[in-house]
Amino acid sequence: MSTFGKAIEINLFGESHGKSIGIVINNLPAGISLDLKAINTALSKRRPNSELSTSRQEQDKYEIVSGYFNGLTTGTPLTFLIPNTDVHSTDYTKNILRPSHADYTAFVKYGSYQDYRGGGHFSGRLTAPLVILGAISAQLLAQKGILIGSHIASIKDQTDKLFSDFKPSSDILETLNSSRFPVLDSIQTELFKAIILKAKDNKDSVGGTIETMILGLDAGYGDPFFDSIESILSHLLFSIPSVKGLEFGKGFAITKMFGSEANDSFYIDNNVVKTKTNNSGGIQGGISNGMPIIFKVAIKPTPSIGKTQNTVNIAKMEEVKLNLKGRHDPAIIHRVVYVINAITAYAILELIIRKEGFSWIK
Amino acid sequence: MSTFGKAIEINLFGESHGKSIGIVINNLPAGISLDLKAINTALSKRRPNSELSTSRQEQDKYEIVSGYFNGLTTGTPLTFLIPNTDVHSTDYTKNILRPSHADYTAFVKYGSYQDYRGGGHFSGRLTAPLVILGAISAQLLAQKGILIGSHIASIKDQTDKLFSDFKPSSDILETLNSSRFPVLDSIQTELFKAIILKAKDNKDSVGGTIETMILGLDAGYGDPFFDSIESILSHLLFSIPSVKGLEFGKGFAITKMFGSEANDSFYIDNNVVKTKTNNSGGIQGGISNGMPIIFKVAIKPTPSIGKTQNTVNIAKMEEVKLNLKGRHDPAIIHRVVYVINAITAYAILELIIRKEGFSWIK
Amino acid sequence: MSTFGKAIEINLFGESHGKSIGIVINNLPAGISLDLKAINTALSKRRPNSELSTSRQEQDKYEIVSGYFNGLTTGTPLTFLIPNTDVHSTDYTKNILRPSHADYTAFVKYGSYQDYRGGGHFSGRLTAPLVILGAISAQLLAQKGILIGSHIASIKDQTDKLFSDFKPSSDILETLNSSRFPVLDSIQTELFKAIILKAKDNKDSVGGTIETMILGLDAGYGDPFFDSIESILSHLLFSIPSVKGLEFGKGFAITKMFGSEANDSFYIDNNVVKTKTNNSGGIQGGISNGMPIIFKVAIKPTPSIGKTQNTVNIAKMEEVKLNLKGRHDPAIIHRVVYVINAITAYAILELIIRKEGFSWIK
Amino acid sequence: MSTFGKAIEINLFGESHGKSIGIVINNLPAGISLDLKAINTALSKRRPNSELSTSRQEQDKYEIVSGYFNGLTTGTPLTFLIPNTDVHSTDYTKNILRPSHADYTAFVKYGSYQDYRGGGHFSGRLTAPLVILGAISAQLLAQKGILIGSHIASIKDQTDKLFSDFKPSSDILETLNSSRFPVLDSIQTELFKAIILKAKDNKDSVGGTIETMILGLDAGYGDPFFDSIESILSHLLFSIPSVKGLEFGKGFAITKMFGSEANDSFYIDNNVVKTKTNNSGGIQGGISNGMPIIFKVAIKPTPSIGKTQNTVNIAKMEEVKLNLKGRHDPAIIHRVVYVINAITAYAILELIIRKEGFSWIK
Repeated sequence: MSTFGKAIEINLFGESHGKSIGIVINNLPAGISLDLKAINTALSKRRPNSELSTSRQEQDKYEIVSGYFNGLTTGTPLTFLIPNTDVHSTDYTKNILRPSHADYTAFVKYGSYQDYRGGGHFSGRLTAPLVILGAISAQLLAQKGILIGSHIASIKDQTDKLFSDFKPSSDILETLNSSRFPVLDSIQTELFKAIILKAKDNKDSVGGTIETMILGLDAGYGDPFFDSIESILSHLLFSIPSVKGLEFGKGFAITKMFGSEANDSFYIDNNVVKTKTNNSGGIQGGISNGMPIIFKVAIKPTPSIGKTQNTVNIAKMEEVKLNLKGRHDPAIIHRVVYVINAITAYAILELIIRKEGFSWIK
Repeated sequence: MSTFGKAIEINLFGESHGKSIGIVINNLPAGISLDLKAINTALSKRRPNSELSTSRQEQDKYEIVSGYFNGLTTGTPLTFLIPNTDVHSTDYTKNILRPSHADYTAFVKYGSYQDYRGGGHFSGRLTAPLVILGAISAQLLAQKGILIGSHIASIKDQTDKLFSDFKPSSDILETLNSSRFPVLDSIQTELFKAIILKAKDNKDSVGGTIETMILGLDAGYGDPFFDSIESILSHLLFSIPSVKGLEFGKGFAITKMFGSEANDSFYIDNNVVKTKTNNSGGIQGGISNGMPIIFKVAIKPTPSIGKTQNTVNIAKMEEVKLNLKGRHDPAIIHRVVYVINAITAYAILELIIRKEGFSWIK
Repeated sequence: MSTFGKAIEINLFGESHGKSIGIVINNLPAGISLDLKAINTALSKRRPNSELSTSRQEQDKYEIVSGYFNGLTTGTPLTFLIPNTDVHSTDYTKNILRPSHADYTAFVKYGSYQDYRGGGHFSGRLTAPLVILGAISAQLLAQKGILIGSHIASIKDQTDKLFSDFKPSSDILETLNSSRFPVLDSIQTELFKAIILKAKDNKDSVGGTIETMILGLDAGYGDPFFDSIESILSHLLFSIPSVKGLEFGKGFAITKMFGSEANDSFYIDNNVVKTKTNNSGGIQGGISNGMPIIFKVAIKPTPSIGKTQNTVNIAKMEEVKLNLKGRHDPAIIHRVVYVINAITAYAILELIIRKEGFSWIK
Repeated sequence: MSTFGKAIEINLFGESHGKSIGIVINNLPAGISLDLKAINTALSKRRPNSELSTSRQEQDKYEIVSGYFNGLTTGTPLTFLIPNTDVHSTDYTKNILRPSHADYTAFVKYGSYQDYRGGGHFSGRLTAPLVILGAISAQLLAQKGILIGSHIASIKDQTDKLFSDFKPSSDILETLNSSRFPVLDSIQTELFKAIILKAKDNKDSVGGTIETMILGLDAGYGDPFFDSIESILSHLLFSIPSVKGLEFGKGFAITKMFGSEANDSFYIDNNVVKTKTNNSGGIQGGISNGMPIIFKVAIKPTPSIGKTQNTVNIAKMEEVKLNLKGRHDPAIIHRVVYVINAITAYAILELIIRKEGFSWIK
């Protein structure tokens, strides 16, 4: 379903070309002065805003229809509505399945009843309300000194530096968070953009990886087994369209190490237990260990491409050629990176409130 | 928490050196003749049973204490209890943190109250009840023609063939499922074992990757966003101790492809829509597309090693050397592979019942 | 929270005097042609529409903002929005607590941040989206031959006949459902209305009881213990503002009977097991037994009255007199009766889908 | 299902004549020194222990199989197991439906697969683990000064005094809690017992009502709509076998009052807002208002009676006479009263932890 959460329960709704998309956020405490500017900034970064993205121009002007009174949350369900405005529904053909989109699976699940226009409820556009949720979550996490940031770790074969190349610091994350194309090694910026633009010229698309770091989360959050931090994070991260892989700490590379190399030795630093390496990515036994939490997600190339593709007309059950019209993203990784931040912030907030309740929130 | 599921709700309990470990399985229909032989076989495969594993000899003799009457399920909560018998609790020292185990995080979360012996509730031993759950789930899935199988895809740098090297067939999975060291390329068996034994000689350990395939799941299962197949599977897979990475279909490798290479073109085969490639791993928009579901998990090297390690005595807050005694696994990948099968079977059963209810079960 | 459901998850939102109230209904199957006329009729019956009710005139013009395409559900979250139009917010004073309203408890829970106007999220107005939910649920239940109906069983000391005075029949329920003031004994109609109008003249209010019957639900729905039919129904019924009591079957009166009188003897009627009496109200062991399900709820007198009341100014922490202005209901029982039908229909739908999934829905 | 809770999730399991019954209690904090004596006392009070009850003699010797180490909780799932010992399974006939028991509904739901002996999972015996849960919950609530107590408010037509006849005080509740037959007006004790014994002589049974009070719960717990205190309490109370009615505060009697009589006027007492009357039973808008929470439940007469009854042999589908053998309770109200206390304590604990997390627990 399009709901999640025990402590802060969310309900996402809407279709790409329907009247509105939106989200209900339940159980936030009353009296929070929402940082609307931060919400707007987060939305503007997710929004297509350059030649690297689709030319669809959605202003993401949201409306708060409940749970907000005199500029403060009321404690009752907080509902955001984002009307869809710049829709070109005629660009979409109902029965021609777009490869590697959800067109076919949605057809099987919902029959011909789905709102096929622009991908309907499966559209990446549905991540806009998640970005609002993430901005609110980040605002609350900041009260606990928790900071989340991500960078584009690779696009196709081209790679950025990794967090492990630096000493963890909030400065790095703040720099990334203030950027509209976050990379650690500034040399990569133009190389990454060039790859995207070349794919665009070729009516093709590219994907990449995103590396995320959470700083300031104390040890002790998460549970053994089914509510491990990895379980909660992965549940939410894999709900983001285009995510196809996820690894914590050294991830797949740890499988090539001996235990004696992989194990994170403990030492004492100023009366705090720390680990010399952080191959575990800040999580042991499903619980945070106080070191930075680090993970990486794989983002597949955008499935909408201009090149001619082989596919099927599902109504006629015949094979056809598809030449996608409309406005497409040659890459979405530089937009998804903010969605990853957002959903991560929500996941961590959920874990904290499950353990501590709401009393720490100002 | 140690609970999961909306349709088939489970509750895992127990500690490695406590009286018993076990599981409550809720909501299974009445009248199922449990295949106890299949449960025993599954348990025996997970159990350490060769020089490749720890010498702890648990017989995993379970007792069904509720929900089972005259050899059939009753429809009410089905509870399995596995007494712990072969425990050497004196091998464990309370305050010396074992690196990359849950000792430290459990200490932070539970204070000195946790049952530290053998890792307590965090022990891999808790996966034995999950194997029982998996055997029951697999028995029910077989009624729908669904078959799940896994192989050791790599150990350290040594790699097996992949499912993509073969035409998908149930024969492959059945062969894997009948093996006690499942690999696709039989040449690898001895090479893999040699790596493990060499690590054992060196008082070290190794990890690897496991590749899993689900055959026979029709298109249309799973939901957009928060109950995508990837979300449910990842939630459960990342709850298994030692899993540090997960990728579906081409996974991280898809990030190096162009969209025109990555997209799975549709075609028609005997009036069924299929994809020519299966880079998506059988899932699009979070929903099964009828192609085999394929994913890979990363298993870290066993953290228990005989080599001297640097660590901390948490009671005295001082740095110490650790020389682990006791019986350790130089690798657990050949045991975890059956746990991955088990939890996957449960995940798929849960998804099916959420959609269709229980009426299809005989 | 304002969410409920495992099979059909709902999320209610909005405040009495905010922009809009609404509901998200998750997991309804695709392709349902919603009976909008039935929704409108249900809303119009709940709406104040005579001298027996407040003069607030809300048209309850709803908008479907998601999950609905070409006149059919899409299978994705279905969101209804009802803008608030006829609001007189100046009638409400922020700090003067209205006795037996939620003003004080909301103040304690949410501080001064709540939207106090018209009761905010606690307002009976929030039941309008529930009536929409109920109309949709009833439409689906009708496909299984399940019919739900209620009547005003008493107002103050004046009582209607009870369902037990008649042979259960769908005709009775259909007559009740087509009425705007449903009673079983038509003689009571004017007597009931006279009591309400007299209370209105006296600037006072009255309450009463509502009796509900569910016909056509087969035996076998519900679960032992925590998901008994009584548990699910009571959970939802007690969420309706003003409900203070609930009894199934003979309810409190059964405590005055001997077991030999109270027990419902079984007999066989046309090869179907039935009970001669229905003191259990159609439920045994938490599970439907195929007999009509019958329950009664107690509705307290409307707390908003014109008479002078003693209360507290919570900002000044001083005792004050309250003379409520604004438009009030001298009774709400003739409006709540439709809300009881609505929430009951949803509860039964939820129970059926938990057991059988969605495949039976056309 | 037999699970409940978001904060403290519980899983009840077992059958009356199976190997064991038990409960898993998830998410309790580590380091709690369980008051085993209090648990034993609570169990002994629920246990049949006089001529007023069945002669089945279960010692309720429980075993803690997980989550408990060195006399303290570990923070991981806490599992209690109570072996069944004194079972006379031959007293039960498989196919003869006992009127007003769950025999028929269980048959419809589970077919002939249910463990029919002694009512199986539907047995009142399953409330023994709930009493353990309740004793632990009460121990934790005491840390917040919250006290819960109940009395037998009526048996058949004979009535006890009510809490409203006294000034609320913890002394009253402590007296009730120390009794094995709790009544407010000691004159009633023998009258009540005489009614039970007379019913026993007549091979019949009686029911009654139980009134419960919660003292010391601050204002502000509970939520509007679906997690109102009434909703959570009613969900759990109606899961107890034999409960057929529930009313909060004045309950059904409030429907006979005018609003001006029913409304609870506010006043200020030592800088605390209180209500002069407590017709609302301490709850407004689903949230506690700081006044004592008061409710009453209806307990039906025990359905097992010695008198000849008309019923059906479900295997042969023929009408038969039933003469129940075995050991029966002429009344269970004096045993259920402790179950009501137990489930109430758990409900309140769950609500508190949802709001405040676990940090307040010592």
